[in-house]
Amino acid sequence: MEFSLKNEQQQLLSKMATNDGHGENSPYFDGWKAYDSDPYHPTRNPNGVIQMGLAENQLCFDLIEEWVLNNPEASICTAEGANKFMEVAIYQDYHGLPEFRNAVARFMEKVRGERVKFDPNRIVMSGGATGAHETLAFCLADPEDAFLVPTPYYPGFDRDLRWRTGIQLLPIVCHSSNDFKVTKESMEAAYQKAQEANIRVKGFLLNNPSNPLGTVLDRETLIDIVTFINDKNIHLICDEIYSATVFSQPEFISISEIIEHDVQCNRDLIHLVYSLSKDLGFPGFRVGILYSYNDAVVSCARKMSSFGLVSTQTQHLIASMLSDETFTDKIISTSSERLAARHGLFTRGLAQVGIGTLKSSAGLYFWMDLRRLLRESTFEAEMELWRIIIHEVKLNVSPGLSFHCSEPGWFRVCFANMDDESVRVALRRIHKFVLVQGKATEPTTPKSRCGSSKLQLSLSFRRLDERVMGSHMMSPHSPMASPLVRAT
Amino acid sequence: MEFSLKNEQQQLLSKMATNDGHGENSPYFDGWKAYDSDPYHPTRNPNGVIQMGLAENQLCFDLIEEWVLNNPEASICTAEGANKFMEVAIYQDYHGLPEFRNAVARFMEKVRGERVKFDPNRIVMSGGATGAHETLAFCLADPEDAFLVPTPYYPGFDRDLRWRTGIQLLPIVCHSSNDFKVTKESMEAAYQKAQEANIRVKGFLLNNPSNPLGTVLDRETLIDIVTFINDKNIHLICDEIYSATVFSQPEFISISEIIEHDVQCNRDLIHLVYSLSKDLGFPGFRVGILYSYNDAVVSCARKMSSFGLVSTQTQHLIASMLSDETFTDKIISTSSERLAARHGLFTRGLAQVGIGTLKSSAGLYFWMDLRRLLRESTFEAEMELWRIIIHEVKLNVSPGLSFHCSEPGWFRVCFANMDDESVRVALRRIHKFVLVQGKATEPTTPKSRCGSSKLQLSLSFRRLDERVMGSHMMSPHSPMASPLVRAT
Repeated sequence: MEFSLKNEQQQLLSKMATNDGHGENSPYFDGWKAYDSDPYHPTRNPNGVIQMGLAENQLCFDLIEEWVLNNPEASICTAEGANKFMEVAIYQDYHGLPEFRNAVARFMEKVRGERVKFDPNRIVMSGGATGAHETLAFCLADPEDAFLVPTPYYPGFDRDLRWRTGIQLLPIVCHSSNDFKVTKESMEAAYQKAQEANIRVKGFLLNNPSNPLGTVLDRETLIDIVTFINDKNIHLICDEIYSATVFSQPEFISISEIIEHDVQCNRDLIHLVYSLSKDLGFPGFRVGILYSYNDAVVSCARKMSSFGLVSTQTQHLIASMLSDETFTDKIISTSSERLAARHGLFTRGLAQVGIGTLKSSAGLYFWMDLRRLLRESTFEAEMELWRIIIHEVKLNVSPGLSFHCSEPGWFRVCFANMDDESVRVALRRIHKFVLVQGKATEPTTPKSRCGSSKLQLSLSFRRLDERVMGSHMMSPHSPMASPLVRAT
Repeated sequence: MEFSLKNEQQQLLSKMATNDGHGENSPYFDGWKAYDSDPYHPTRNPNGVIQMGLAENQLCFDLIEEWVLNNPEASICTAEGANKFMEVAIYQDYHGLPEFRNAVARFMEKVRGERVKFDPNRIVMSGGATGAHETLAFCLADPEDAFLVPTPYYPGFDRDLRWRTGIQLLPIVCHSSNDFKVTKESMEAAYQKAQEANIRVKGFLLNNPSNPLGTVLDRETLIDIVTFINDKNIHLICDEIYSATVFSQPEFISISEIIEHDVQCNRDLIHLVYSLSKDLGFPGFRVGILYSYNDAVVSCARKMSSFGLVSTQTQHLIASMLSDETFTDKIISTSSERLAARHGLFTRGLAQVGIGTLKSSAGLYFWMDLRRLLRESTFEAEMELWRIIIHEVKLNVSPGLSFHCSEPGWFRVCFANMDDESVRVALRRIHKFVLVQGKATEPTTPKSRCGSSKLQLSLSFRRLDERVMGSHMMSPHSPMASPLVRAT
């Protein structure tokens, strides 16, 4: 439902309700809408848009369902667990069930290779990572204050951290020339720019492993960042929601490991955001976690958690599931293996037609380099190409522009929200596209290329897709699927 | 965990994090802490504090557990339902499961005697009523704007609507002389006062049935209120979270019924807050609902709901449960009967020692009149009496002051979070207190009364409680129970 606002109506509502701070007006979300209006299905809609804009982890639900069936006492809705229904349903303590906090802290330790310890008393619940980010922004900064954030970054941050808090996000500009690494110079440049504009910098927002890059930060960079924020006396918010999606070397190093073992800093400045939406693939359960080394932030954030507590029904289930260390060991290792296999299948397939991707070892997506397919090196050309990919190739991938990338031609491609066969369909479409694009571009001028390729593509793909049967998407989302829920 | 803030630390955090806007510094919550430090238990701690400050509905969990066991397919954690685990866990649409919205809308109609219709497309999820209130405040008002609210009102409103939004709540002062009714004169007076102070009034916050009064608003008053807000062109937020707790005449009339049948108004001004924390007794599940007749508010609030969505595991269960109309009919009627019986048992017991209560027909509490036990008619005297009740009589009731009541001597007493035997223990303590208070006060001056009664009380109650065995509280909350979660 979208509604146009009359002037009179606008006066009745708040400024917040009548501005665009929610950030939904982005090609990132437009792509979701394109998918929603024509979703691919192997038999019912084989020419539909394949959803590759959704960072979902669907590769291990066989293990999860097996565990659930073997552990009926973990649920308050089974014969074995219903005697706890009332106790769980009436529990309204904003600290959360102690067994939930203990189990989440242990799981976070395990995901970080047992190299760090987490105190369950510092675990604060939130409505997904979305809520955790907003809570931290409310706790750490006043309206107009700013957080620095390396580009490219997750589009939802603009909503999560900015919309209702009034803070700003200022880019630390990263470049493909060094694989989008965060350098001392880039941090310092962003900070100086803010100083010159008289903007108070209160924090540094880091996402590690990175969405959309799929890369993990190396130890040296992490030490540089901690040193930087400590020198400037600003907060470091480290979003580690993809920490268990690491599937190859280099391994993931948590900020917690850095401050425990590598560098001295004021720990009151360090805050983690976590979630089970990616690592376990439960975005619907809205398990968000804020972990702060700052006592005052823990205390304040816990009071704010009343606005986004995790359902006790879900806390109870998760407490049991994550307390089973045989299970958590198994799912972490199996998920890693399956993500590696899927990533390999997809990126090798792209390499066959000369499409490169940024080398990565984590995430539910990779960062695809289509710079050589751009008409010219501009974001206008990136959007032209993206519209062809969405509407003709019928793949919802997300353009770099929507991630605030500084260079045109990069696209995020999600690969864990579908089955192998859907990946093959997607690859066939891309192969065809690249081949047709190559043929179509040779004899024409840049101006006319798009129109020409569009026509050929729409013919080619219809025939191609007609031959693809028997495959299926694992997640046919509803036509009303909403774009702005965190978990992407 | 409470921490003192150093000056330096304060500068690092936001103003919001370092002020007291969270509202926890209230006797309302102090009472909870007193209970938490010495919780009553029939055998383990028979002299402990009985929790009567918690508006929980625990009287029908036998029916709920029976339903759960008879409907294993309603859960994704049973053999019958686990095949839907993935589909539910990955669902991240902020509209909510369609079957959830349909079922909630139907339940809301049923609770309102089928006299109104609700459109499932206007159902917006939130993290409890807490989140719904904040979302509405963000949508409807800018910082410094004000909502009018009749007194006495729920202490959590100060946090829910004000803390992070920066809006103000201005009292519409109500009096015991007309049973705390909202009058045209009192509304107009509050509005004029705001005008004179140059404060922009953007809304009227109504809680019907009232917490803490337990009363329902009559049709005439509701019509007056709708006329008032329509004339002033301000919003009406109607919190109806206790709508299914009505246990006797007069019956509950929803604001929806008034605007559909009784009075013309601009429906863009009308918004409902609902929840399953009270009517079904599931505060832990965090099912909050915002229902607006204003399209733009629905659209904006839905975007904001990303910060406090209901867990899909819980949506799925609630969808099944509330779709079973045989069950919903039964639980609504049974709950009503049991609340009536409990309310009668308690208020008759108080009447035996001359303690009056405001006549009420709803809620999980009543409004107890202890004005004649005050040393003098001041809030200082109310707090003195309250401290005796908490620390000597060992009942956590909530003083009127914490509800912004304009007259000292009133206390809210919750009655549905315990079993009959605990009610009897509480009544015996009150009887003893009143008798001792009577004896103790006769020969002494006002100044010395409290000290004297304290001593006698502590001796009397120890002996009394030693005789009370075999009873038990239904909800021994954890010692870390948090005070500020909505559901109270």
